[in-house]
Amino acid sequence: MIENQYYSQELQGPFEVESIGELKLEEGGIISDCRIAYRTYGELNEKKDNVILIPTWYSGTSKNMEAYIGQGRALDPDRYFIVVVNQIGSGLSSSPHNSPDPIYGPNFPFVRISDDVRAQHILLTQKWGIKEIALVIGGSMGAQQTYEWAVRYPDMVKRAAPIAGTAKNTYHDFLFTDTLIEAITSDPGYQKGNYHDNSEVSDGLKRHAKIWATMGLSTEFYQQEKWKLFGVDTKEAFITEFMEPLFCSMDPNDLLCMAWKWQRGDVSTMYGGDLAKALGTIKAKVFVMPIDEDMFFPVRDCAAEQKLIPNSELRVIKSICGHFGLFCAEGGEYTNQVDKILSELLQTEIALHL
Amino acid sequence: MIENQYYSQELQGPFEVESIGELKLEEGGIISDCRIAYRTYGELNEKKDNVILIPTWYSGTSKNMEAYIGQGRALDPDRYFIVVVNQIGSGLSSSPHNSPDPIYGPNFPFVRISDDVRAQHILLTQKWGIKEIALVIGGSMGAQQTYEWAVRYPDMVKRAAPIAGTAKNTYHDFLFTDTLIEAITSDPGYQKGNYHDNSEVSDGLKRHAKIWATMGLSTEFYQQEKWKLFGVDTKEAFITEFMEPLFCSMDPNDLLCMAWKWQRGDVSTMYGGDLAKALGTIKAKVFVMPIDEDMFFPVRDCAAEQKLIPNSELRVIKSICGHFGLFCAEGGEYTNQVDKILSELLQTEIALHL
Repeated sequence: MIENQYYSQELQGPFEVESIGELKLEEGGIISDCRIAYRTYGELNEKKDNVILIPTWYSGTSKNMEAYIGQGRALDPDRYFIVVVNQIGSGLSSSPHNSPDPIYGPNFPFVRISDDVRAQHILLTQKWGIKEIALVIGGSMGAQQTYEWAVRYPDMVKRAAPIAGTAKNTYHDFLFTDTLIEAITSDPGYQKGNYHDNSEVSDGLKRHAKIWATMGLSTEFYQQEKWKLFGVDTKEAFITEFMEPLFCSMDPNDLLCMAWKWQRGDVSTMYGGDLAKALGTIKAKVFVMPIDEDMFFPVRDCAAEQKLIPNSELRVIKSICGHFGLFCAEGGEYTNQVDKILSELLQTEIALHL
Repeated sequence: MIENQYYSQELQGPFEVESIGELKLEEGGIISDCRIAYRTYGELNEKKDNVILIPTWYSGTSKNMEAYIGQGRALDPDRYFIVVVNQIGSGLSSSPHNSPDPIYGPNFPFVRISDDVRAQHILLTQKWGIKEIALVIGGSMGAQQTYEWAVRYPDMVKRAAPIAGTAKNTYHDFLFTDTLIEAITSDPGYQKGNYHDNSEVSDGLKRHAKIWATMGLSTEFYQQEKWKLFGVDTKEAFITEFMEPLFCSMDPNDLLCMAWKWQRGDVSTMYGGDLAKALGTIKAKVFVMPIDEDMFFPVRDCAAEQKLIPNSELRVIKSICGHFGLFCAEGGEYTNQVDKILSELLQTEIALHL
């Protein structure tokens, strides 16, 4: 265990933590006491048919999703029981930095998107007896989990909204994530994962932040000086006062756990590598929602997958922030688009069991 | 001096080397014996009005430009006297690795694009008595030098064709180059530039290669398995057999010299930072030629600059290779586009002195 205040209730809360017991992982490892951190909004109704599930993205937590939820909006806690689940490795759920020996730190086992989704399935079915999900929605790695849900549990997911992410990670994206990984592991302070405090890896975390600053935003974001959206006054401050402090607060091994998982997100593994077959099994109504300026999940990659999903539509979100549009820094300019699309999706009648 | 066979006549030749004497640099440094490596094609005619100048790009040499030149093509040595000039820091011209004390290696002075262009001006005017250039054409950092020529010597440049580059570097591009720089300097083997052989910095050079592999190509390049264009059989081999060996052969201090220069390319410094004014002084006919899939010199950035140039047109090149389209790995699919545009440009009648 490393104490890291970034993952505390004060900074990321409120959230609950539930143990789902032993989780056997696809790659062969075991998390013997798998703790899943989550936050709920609203009440589960009697029919248990008002569930919205939101998994988190790379380096994100349930805190990030607050901006997507609100009374009178699409994700309305007055109507829905909304469960935001922090992915394994997020720093809130079981993660390298908060796990005991023998899976502490660099010894944490490899986790796949499918492990997360199976863990979330256990949480939802065993804790609340949920058998049907009105909507799974997530951005980036949250989109990977959303796709995994729709393919793995087709009889349970009525609607799905993957934002700025893919069902099968591309090789370009794999390489991009490699550059993030190597930014961290190349830091002598990383010590093969045996650092004592994330500050020892700050050089690597800063490089990691700067690579995000190029591919995570958009060329036009800088041209139009949109860094102001993130509460800073200069382009240099966007790096040193927003990007670097953000990633330097995080645990390197946690980030690497998520990065490895991200690189291998692929729903087709359930169907022997046949992506068309895998996506063809989806029963949910799916709105595929790429962001137009996203540099590594471009619209065309998402559109190609959408065409393989029977009951689906492509809904492109406009955001000059590119992938970081997910942060909702643009306020209503971004969230109004998302809310409108999700409202329409939630109004669609779906019958999974005809 | 470090012996590095990558920069030899065997691998990069043939080329000539000419000393232009002492070059005082804009940043205050001095290269006391500034050697410029160049290759010429064809013959200078009596009127000395058949000159085509081609400066080189980041990490490139005159060797790379062979693919752009040929009998019966736009850049035809039967008609033109073509001078390909290797930029300072390229490893062929004066560069950190091949300079004597006190400017050897990490002590090499800061060089700007304007220094290169002034050095090339000295070479052309003093060696051959050239007073007029029919066409300056260059890709990437070669485009930066092309723009600098057109602004700095408006009465000398009749036509200009900047490919996949900008007149004023963007901040997004500055950040991208920072990630390249940091990939190298973060390698403990770099030793603040005091390595004894580039192989000591191979980890950093490999990371540098991988960052290029994400931003230098395009997302679609990998989706369509276009790495085959570079003579490799798998996507992994594109990294380990093409990208890594390419950059691992190079001298780290040479790359850093060019990277620093690239980051600060800006013709507006001649006009107090007024880009519109600077580009407005251009007398040459300019075809601005971005590559449609270029991830860091997007068409819109180039188009915005083109609008500021009086006698100019935007001509977009299609290449799935993105910025690496410049390598001409697609053969005629790429070069036919370039040749067609350049032929039209060369046929345009220009009178600089009305």
